[in-house]
Amino acid sequence: MDYNAEATRSLARIAEQKPLIHQITNVVVTNDSANMTLGFGALPVMAYAPEEVAEMAAMAQALVLNIGTLSAAEIEAMLLAGRSAGDSGVPIVLDPVGAGATRFRTESALRLMSELPVTVLRGNRGEIGALVGSGQVRGVEAVGTEDPRAVAQAAAERFRVVTAVTGPVDFVVGDGRVLEVRNGHPLLGRITGSGCMSTAAIGIFLTAGEDVLLQTALGLGTYGLAAERAAEGEPGPGTFRSRLLDEVAALGAGSTHGLQISEA
Amino acid sequence: MDYNAEATRSLARIAEQKPLIHQITNVVVTNDSANMTLGFGALPVMAYAPEEVAEMAAMAQALVLNIGTLSAAEIEAMLLAGRSAGDSGVPIVLDPVGAGATRFRTESALRLMSELPVTVLRGNRGEIGALVGSGQVRGVEAVGTEDPRAVAQAAAERFRVVTAVTGPVDFVVGDGRVLEVRNGHPLLGRITGSGCMSTAAIGIFLTAGEDVLLQTALGLGTYGLAAERAAEGEPGPGTFRSRLLDEVAALGAGSTHGLQISEA
Amino acid sequence: MDYNAEATRSLARIAEQKPLIHQITNVVVTNDSANMTLGFGALPVMAYAPEEVAEMAAMAQALVLNIGTLSAAEIEAMLLAGRSAGDSGVPIVLDPVGAGATRFRTESALRLMSELPVTVLRGNRGEIGALVGSGQVRGVEAVGTEDPRAVAQAAAERFRVVTAVTGPVDFVVGDGRVLEVRNGHPLLGRITGSGCMSTAAIGIFLTAGEDVLLQTALGLGTYGLAAERAAEGEPGPGTFRSRLLDEVAALGAGSTHGLQISEA
Repeated sequence: MDYNAEATRSLARIAEQKPLIHQITNVVVTNDSANMTLGFGALPVMAYAPEEVAEMAAMAQALVLNIGTLSAAEIEAMLLAGRSAGDSGVPIVLDPVGAGATRFRTESALRLMSELPVTVLRGNRGEIGALVGSGQVRGVEAVGTEDPRAVAQAAAERFRVVTAVTGPVDFVVGDGRVLEVRNGHPLLGRITGSGCMSTAAIGIFLTAGEDVLLQTALGLGTYGLAAERAAEGEPGPGTFRSRLLDEVAALGAGSTHGLQISEA
Repeated sequence: MDYNAEATRSLARIAEQKPLIHQITNVVVTNDSANMTLGFGALPVMAYAPEEVAEMAAMAQALVLNIGTLSAAEIEAMLLAGRSAGDSGVPIVLDPVGAGATRFRTESALRLMSELPVTVLRGNRGEIGALVGSGQVRGVEAVGTEDPRAVAQAAAERFRVVTAVTGPVDFVVGDGRVLEVRNGHPLLGRITGSGCMSTAAIGIFLTAGEDVLLQTALGLGTYGLAAERAAEGEPGPGTFRSRLLDEVAALGAGSTHGLQISEA
Repeated sequence: MDYNAEATRSLARIAEQKPLIHQITNVVVTNDSANMTLGFGALPVMAYAPEEVAEMAAMAQALVLNIGTLSAAEIEAMLLAGRSAGDSGVPIVLDPVGAGATRFRTESALRLMSELPVTVLRGNRGEIGALVGSGQVRGVEAVGTEDPRAVAQAAAERFRVVTAVTGPVDFVVGDGRVLEVRNGHPLLGRITGSGCMSTAAIGIFLTAGEDVLLQTALGLGTYGLAAERAAEGEPGPGTFRSRLLDEVAALGAGSTHGLQISEA
């Protein structure tokens, strides 16, 4: 498959349709995630109130749920939004930030997985591992030795959902297929919310095509490619963070040369 | 009127008096809005708790209310703060982010307008249009074909409040007068919170003069001028965002040459 | 004492151990504080839910509490987290942002001081002064004429806790000793959250040594040194903010030449 052509097509579709991406995400990454969404050419809307989330999710083209700073009230809002999204055929991406670090996070993530028609699950190998009983997490960081591909496969099977386990290599698993994405840069690990932003990228790309596995890989790949370009010249993390948004915004107008996606 | 002289005078007054700007705003823009306030030489304070908002608002020189990520509890805090501001003669600016997108937002904005002595209402044509029954909003973005000037006039008449409808050209309407502001840059549309920051700019400028219409236009104009300067060389949105704050901070020490305000 | 050698040793220890820094902080500075923590080589985790804060605090190496946008619920979460940290021997740093500006802030800060085994208290002279009955605060800014050293000494005696009063010169007082830190730059006053980030720096350094007074001074000194380096060439505040993170991240790999800590 010509992944560059697919990425170019998806980026053009996003720029043309300006999909609305409803995000219920953590307070750390809210601003970055909204800016990243605008960078890709989509429209972010952050809405959390139980009074409005169902209405907002129903009019969105994708719903991104992220439990990075969850509360009991926010979980309820996510359930309301997620049910509404499901009823309206709006794809849902879930980022179980810090699952495995506390029982509340693990249980909340599992509850969302069990009650909502999640389209894509994305996390690091510790977080996804925790949901299938094998991960180790310190705070929001994976610290165990799990094999990321095996973790992705276990989650994809258990939850019957496309699962992306991201790290030095990203593994996207579902429907008996596996895609590997080799884009990205270590500087992503030096800024907060880089994983959360990749989850938003997946949500955005899900609006641009029907093949969930492919669109997930394209979202991760183009985001990682922008990171590689932003890292040129080895800037510090503060400068890198600004440039990352510059490079995401430049993706639509430029080439996606350097995209490294392959079937595994 | 010599708008450059007025802008210079207002900027000097802000730098000298360091007005306290109490902001109850959304989680997306909180950090940017606080930085922008410091950039203009004013002091931001973000305070949301019902236990303290009345006290904080009474000691502030302006109160900025923004419903971008509102909740029922936050609306109550806004009412408490707004009543206290009204009792103390503190001007109030309201930004009805996303009004028209959900009933909760539209109704909350209308409730704030009806219960509080709002000084200035600022939004895009979709949001303000929604409050007078004509707007179309997707998420937080205007998508209809309303005439922004007509929308501003309708809101100014209906609510008897100075109303700013911002876009490629900003229209500030009230007391039978109309000011047009032609500063700004398309890159503002590529970063999140650019409208919210313009609302904060209005709040800051209201502390520097009695003519509400004029001060509103000066806030929008100087902010837009800083954006034009930050956009020189066509940076990406991440770099633009940093430079915007640089240029706002440089306004006080420099000239406001390029300000485009006129009576319409 | 060779403060440069101590700073180098602490930075190396932080980079090696990657301590988990649990932060319950305000919405304005959440993202910056998390990025700053990563910059120093530590791992931030922001967790606020009463269901999980005790568990998270117990596994952390330091707990940072900041009341910048406090609510009644957040105070309860801080108490839960703080008691758990105390039980587990995890050091606690408290930043009483805006104490003195409203009764709610002053009383909440005093309650936290009285109910929790706080290790270090850090604030500006207005905030710390308010806790000992002498400070003046407008919003979150000190405006009185208190002598910062006297304020720090009064708080250290009253609360029997190491106290850092920061400003043009930082005074760190406790156990009958006083350290002065002369690093920093006026540009820190032009960006929001610069004080909050210095509090996070203290929390991070507390994980790298037993001498609380020394580690507090090293945290403030290295952070201030990074600010001096970021300010070279007099950038605007937006550019300075990005560079500050760059320079913090460069501290570990470089020299701490220029550190200005002395016994007073």
